[in-house]
Order: sequence, then structure tokens, then C-alpha cells
Amino acid sequence: MKRLCKLLKDSICSTDLEDIMCYGYDASSTEGIPAAVVWPQTTDDVVTICKFAYANNYKIIPRGAGTGMTGGGVPVVENTILMSFEHMNRILEVDTANLNVIVEPGVINADLQHVLADNGYFYPPDPASLNMCTIGGNVAENAGGPRAVKYGVTRDYVMQLEAVLPDGNVIITGTKTAKSVVGYDLTRLLVGSEGTLATITKIRLKILTTPDGVVTMVAFFHDPTAAGKVVSKIMASCLTPRTLEFMDKYTLDAVKKYKNIGIGDDIQTLLLIELDGNIKAIADETETVCGVCRAFNGIIKFADSDKLSEMLWDIRRSASPALYNISPGKINDDIVVPINRVSDALGEIEKLSKSAGITVACFGHAGDGNLHVNILLDKNNEEMLKKAQKLKKDIFELTLSLEGSISGEHGIGITKAKFIDMELGLKNLDIMRGIKKLFDSKNILNPGKIFPS
Amino acid sequence: MKRLCKLLKDSICSTDLEDIMCYGYDASSTEGIPAAVVWPQTTDDVVTICKFAYANNYKIIPRGAGTGMTGGGVPVVENTILMSFEHMNRILEVDTANLNVIVEPGVINADLQHVLADNGYFYPPDPASLNMCTIGGNVAENAGGPRAVKYGVTRDYVMQLEAVLPDGNVIITGTKTAKSVVGYDLTRLLVGSEGTLATITKIRLKILTTPDGVVTMVAFFHDPTAAGKVVSKIMASCLTPRTLEFMDKYTLDAVKKYKNIGIGDDIQTLLLIELDGNIKAIADETETVCGVCRAFNGIIKFADSDKLSEMLWDIRRSASPALYNISPGKINDDIVVPINRVSDALGEIEKLSKSAGITVACFGHAGDGNLHVNILLDKNNEEMLKKAQKLKKDIFELTLSLEGSISGEHGIGITKAKFIDMELGLKNLDIMRGIKKLFDSKNILNPGKIFPS
Repeated sequence: MKRLCKLLKDSICSTDLEDIMCYGYDASSTEGIPAAVVWPQTTDDVVTICKFAYANNYKIIPRGAGTGMTGGGVPVVENTILMSFEHMNRILEVDTANLNVIVEPGVINADLQHVLADNGYFYPPDPASLNMCTIGGNVAENAGGPRAVKYGVTRDYVMQLEAVLPDGNVIITGTKTAKSVVGYDLTRLLVGSEGTLATITKIRLKILTTPDGVVTMVAFFHDPTAAGKVVSKIMASCLTPRTLEFMDKYTLDAVKKYKNIGIGDDIQTLLLIELDGNIKAIADETETVCGVCRAFNGIIKFADSDKLSEMLWDIRRSASPALYNISPGKINDDIVVPINRVSDALGEIEKLSKSAGITVACFGHAGDGNLHVNILLDKNNEEMLKKAQKLKKDIFELTLSLEGSISGEHGIGITKAKFIDMELGLKNLDIMRGIKKLFDSKNILNPGKIFPS
Repeated sequence: MKRLCKLLKDSICSTDLEDIMCYGYDASSTEGIPAAVVWPQTTDDVVTICKFAYANNYKIIPRGAGTGMTGGGVPVVENTILMSFEHMNRILEVDTANLNVIVEPGVINADLQHVLADNGYFYPPDPASLNMCTIGGNVAENAGGPRAVKYGVTRDYVMQLEAVLPDGNVIITGTKTAKSVVGYDLTRLLVGSEGTLATITKIRLKILTTPDGVVTMVAFFHDPTAAGKVVSKIMASCLTPRTLEFMDKYTLDAVKKYKNIGIGDDIQTLLLIELDGNIKAIADETETVCGVCRAFNGIIKFADSDKLSEMLWDIRRSASPALYNISPGKINDDIVVPINRVSDALGEIEKLSKSAGITVACFGHAGDGNLHVNILLDKNNEEMLKKAQKLKKDIFELTLSLEGSISGEHGIGITKAKFIDMELGLKNLDIMRGIKKLFDSKNILNPGKIFPS
């Protein structure tokens, strides 16, 4: 490892305990210590690191900001080089004529959003961790976020990638054009591959022009089942809100303990709804949405200032840390079901939760059926932990029985690897393993992730 | 082969000369005779055919309607079983609550459009051949069409696939949900793979609700360079038309010879523009678009009835057959360039055309930079044919120098296989060959396509 640090410069390679300790975790509850941390500055550095690992049988984990929820950035084997992209964080090009940007993988999502917003442009994917998470991590996990309901996920914005293969070869996939059918779609094969196939070093993303207007509103409901029904009604109408976020009572209670949000105890559930686009169009759409909410006795509050809108989003984005605050050992999964099964999913999860005697708090992107399911537990209580693990599996079984998927946007990483064959057929897994071997015959890149061991 | 016909029923297998002759071509100028034609009725039939081919070293080509432009459905080796999906043409499910449909691969694009339109729903991808081409073919080629400029291509609508591997194993890829990150994206690996990896037998497609309103208009220009400039201006504004179609003078002349369209000889170029969505919003957008067109002295005509709209689309859809009418040997390529290079591309193609002494007629989806470039020639004139082949390559070189791609939506097939390495790096091609081998170790499916021999 000292040879690698010599090859690179000292400033970009460390084996110091304080460094390797800091890079041994992410937002999941998994931990593992890398042998070294490197901070590449250029694609050439990444090539050097890959060639070193290839020649000397080291493992590599490319890492964004460590906000991943499934342990994708956490070492699980010895001799792992943690490659952190904090220093490759430049926005290299903003091409407004063709509506795209080129960024390095370490660019923080919110930083890109701000630069674009200042110029009248807009990058839709907005994971809740947008103030910390990086575009590279977003691409590796195919991140979504509240706006995915209207605008799709990261995959839908990636046009072109520069990536370093495990042996140090550099490839460029995709094109600068809106369309192209030239061979197999390697770009979308790399998106969502969780750093297991190649290390992404440059990303060309499609951008949009900022919508003319945005309406932000919250609908509060006394009936805990109302929100799920409202979501189905809205999504089956002729409009698509840009966000349709849901929080259940348990999540609201946790947020209330975390910060003062001025929501009464009689409120059982809420929807945070945004509509964007042409101002006249969203005025019409607002009426439709309000009509649906009121039919279920929803109490509607509009965010009539940016400050109020930010406050409402702050409530939503506090959901995960607030739940962590009351249950540091919580198991956080992000199941996704067809939109018209959201109500069923919530009802059945409540039943499973009651039968296990463990609280499950749900919130998330109800508009696309993507629910963040938080099993709240005391991780020092072994019996409870065991029950919670069973509950997790029961929830996955329920999800699949509703024709859903066990991960909407967090990926598989370590924490879901042993469940992946509940969803995927053996033949699919065989093909995926074959693809892994094709890209990474020496199993250098992010070993122990996605595939059950 | 007789054994195969026995295995299947006579009605779905034929080695008769009149059958095999009819399935030996597509809309490219390539030809080849299959050993047999089979018309599977079910996935089980496809499995039987694949297992037979696997055991007996036959080749298989899955075929939609034969409207492909690059020879993707044409046999190039002996012992090829042509598998035609004409009889697997059922719409299996229309799930309006979750906005998706399940179709068999032989469903004709326009048939799906009509069934959906009757119920207030909408499937955007609309290749010019929509009255003939099949959804299976659209998926295999990742087909686009005029509406791609706003709504994206086939890839953006495919949620889930059932596919038969060359050895007869059946896989299901993707999910019924809007999002999912569970292993590598096999769905999008199959989309656009031109029938070389697996035979698609069921397709779940995302659908939309029908937009409230559509405005259709044509802008005529006396200045041949105006259209390209207008396209850049419109696309850099804050709106996205649902179509922004372009026809140059040579194409217009050909259409005039083909049918009476009442367009004067002083018109050098036209744009067919559609805006859709909320009625008030498109009224605003129409004003913006008209303003841009008028700034370039465009003469605007609105289609104020469905009949007139259909007439305008008929002109646009006649472009390819009209050019074929005056030049049956024409070489038709579909390059794509970044939107702000459309003008440059058209200007440079005109120069190359003049220097070669061969007319090149351009039309197509200017809004996403996708131009159908038609080299008009007498295929019996060998010297001209040679010049035209050089011109084709020069146009690809020009395209790549403008950061474009050699195929926007027609794929590579046979006709572009020898040019693919102009665009793709060797390492990319290596990986793609590895993927082909992984799926199809015996090279059964659609051999001789995509990869240069």
C-alpha cells in the first residue's frame, strides 16, 4: 500500500488510522475498515489506482459522500482501497444550447442544482440527502428522490459516462445526442451497478429549463388511510405532480420530537405535493388536486413563500434523521409497489408491525409507490433484532406479493444482498454474475455487494 | 427443419419457397433467404424453436414487421429460422390504475395507439412506420419517432420484458413499478439489442394519459437555412414541442412528385410543429413558437381540424416513400447531432453532396438533432454507387466530428456494422462482444448483425 501512496502523491493517499476509520461506514448500519483511502484528482489517478490494485490483488471501492443506505460504500473484505471522489468535484461544462452538463463524480447534487438554478436550468433528481450526496453516487445507485414521480430517476438523465475498468482501461459510453442506437446500452448498464463494474470518472447529464412556476402545498388528514387513496386518485387523473410525498403518523411523531413543526396530534398522515410548469396549467392542476384531497377531508395549506416551502421540505427531509434520533438502530428499507397498491401495502405493513410488536414508520415517494419503511428497534435488544429481521423479510414478501420491488432507489449493497433472490430469478442472477465477471474478472471492484455470498 | 415443423404444428412452420422468399428482406436494401419461417403463437412455441435451434445448430432471427432500415431482420447466413411475431399480437393487459400495458411483441404500434386513444391514454413512441411496425421490433431497435423530442424513445417506456434466451430458458426482467434498483439493468440491455441477445415475448410498457390539447402547425421558409436556426432557438427556449419535424427542399420536391400537397416551389424548407398539454399552456407556447418562426420570415399555417392535421402528417410520413419513388436505390441513414449543430450538419452535408455530385435529401426529427439523410442514386450506376458509399462514410465522419452518432433510431443491423468502430472504441466493442457471448455462446440469435465481421 505504501507503494501506491508513493505512486500517487501523499496528499491523495493515506493509511492513517483516523482517515481509514472515517471512511469505514455509510448511512446504513454497516461498518468495515479500508486498508487505505485515496482521493483521486484526475481520471489518470483513477487509472493508476486501478492498475495498482489489478497488479497487486487489492480491492477498490469508489465512494461518493457515504450517504448510501445499503452499505454500498462500506468495505467487507481486507485489502480494500477506498477511493473517495471528494476532490473530483468540478462542473466541467454547462452546455445550455444542448441542455446538458458534464460533471466529475464528486460534485454534490445540491451544488449542481444551485449552479443550474442561478442560470434558469434544472436537474430533477433530488435524493433527500441532496446537500451531501454526490452525482457519482447518484449514478452508481440510480438515485431517485421526490421529483422522480414526474421527472424520472438518475438513469433518465445520464447521457454519457467516462469510466475506468478494473484493469485501468478507460471507456466512454453513450453520446452527447438525445438519441443513439449504436450497440448495447453500456451507459444504462453502469447506472445502478453500485460501483461493481467500473469506476465512473465523468458524467454527462441532461438538464431542463426551470419550470415557470411551482406550487407547494401540504394536505393533512385525520384518517390514516386517506393519503394512500388520495395518491391513487391523483396519479390516475390527467396530471402528474412533481412530488407527492407521504408521511405516516409514526414519522410525524418522530419529526415532532426532533423539531418544532406546529402540527397537531390529531393529524394522522400528510401529503406534501408540488406541481410545476406553466403557471396557468398548474393553477388548473392545483384545483384538481385540492378537489381530490378535500373529498377525503384533507386540510390544505399552501406554501405561499419560498421560506414556507423550504420549511415544509425541511419537515419532509427530517423524516429519516428524526426516526434515526428515536431509533438509532432502525432498519430502513425502500420498497416500491404499483401505485394502486400503496394503500394495501401500508395497511398490510401496519398489520405485520402489530403482529411483530415493533413499530414501523413509513414515509416517502408515494406518487411512484416508493415507500421508505423504517423498522424502529433497540439494536441492543437481541430478541427484538431477531424479530425485526423476520419482519424485514415479511415486508419484502408482502412487497413482492403486491408485484413490487425490494428496492426503489437505495440499491442492494450489503444489506439486501441476501434477499435479492427473492425478487430475481436464478437465470437473471447468473447473467448478472456473468456481466460482473466480464467487466471485473478479478473481482476487484466493490466485492461482496449486490450478489448473495 | 422438417423435424422442427413436426414439433410445431404445420400452420406455424413453413419451408415453402413463397413463404421463405417473402421473409427475406426488410426496408433496407438487403436480402437473404431463411431456411424456414415460423409463426410462434405462444412463449412456449418460442422456447421449442430456441431449444431446437440450440440442439441442431440453427440460427434464429426474431422479426417484427420487417420495417427495419438497417437489415436487422434479414438473414445473412444459411440455416436461419425466421421467427415472425405476426400471430403473437395481443394486448394482454391495460392497467389504467398504474398506467401501463402488457403486449405481445407482434402488436402493431398504431393498433396500440388506437386502443389507448379510445380510452383516453397515450403511448408516445411513434415511428413513421407506425401503421405497420410492431412493438417487439420497436423494442429491439429502441425506436423513436417524431414525438421523441418531448417524450423520449422506446427505452423510456419499457418497464418489464419476458424474453427467451437462445438455449430456451425464459427470463423476466424489470418490474411493474415506476422505480427499482435490484441488480444490473437487463431490461435496458435488451432494448436496442436488435434481436441478438434474447427473443422478447412479452413487453410491459408505461403509458400516459392523453394530453388535454394538441396544436399542429407548419412553418414554411424561403431561406433553406432558416429551419435549422429556428430549431435551435425553439429548443433553447423554455418549452419542448412534442414534435419538431424538418423537411428540406429535395424532400419536398420528391413529395410533390409523389402526391399533390399544394406547396409552392418557392418554399425551401418546412417545419411541422406540434405542442401538447394543458390548453392554456399550449396557447402560450404557440405564441412563443410563432414568434421564433416569424423572426426567420416563416409562414405559419395551423391545422385547425383533425383532417388537416392528418394531411400535414401524411406529407411528413410520405417523405421516405416519396424519396424511394424517385430513387429506389437510395441510401437512407439516420444520423443524430447535438441540437445546436443541426444547422452546421445540414450545411456541411449540402457541401459534401455538391462535391460528390449526388443529391442528398434530408428530413426528420430536427428537434432532437436526428436527421434522416437520403443519398439519392441510381443503383445500377456502379460509379455513382461507389461515390455514394464514400459519401455515406464522409457523412458519418462529419456527424462524429460534430459530436453526433451514426444512428439515432434505426440501429446498426447489417448496413452500418462496418462503420460501428468509427463511433465506438475497441474496448467498448470488446465488452459488447463479451455480452453477446454471455447471452448467446453459440451465436444463434441474429448472427452477422451489429458487430463488424
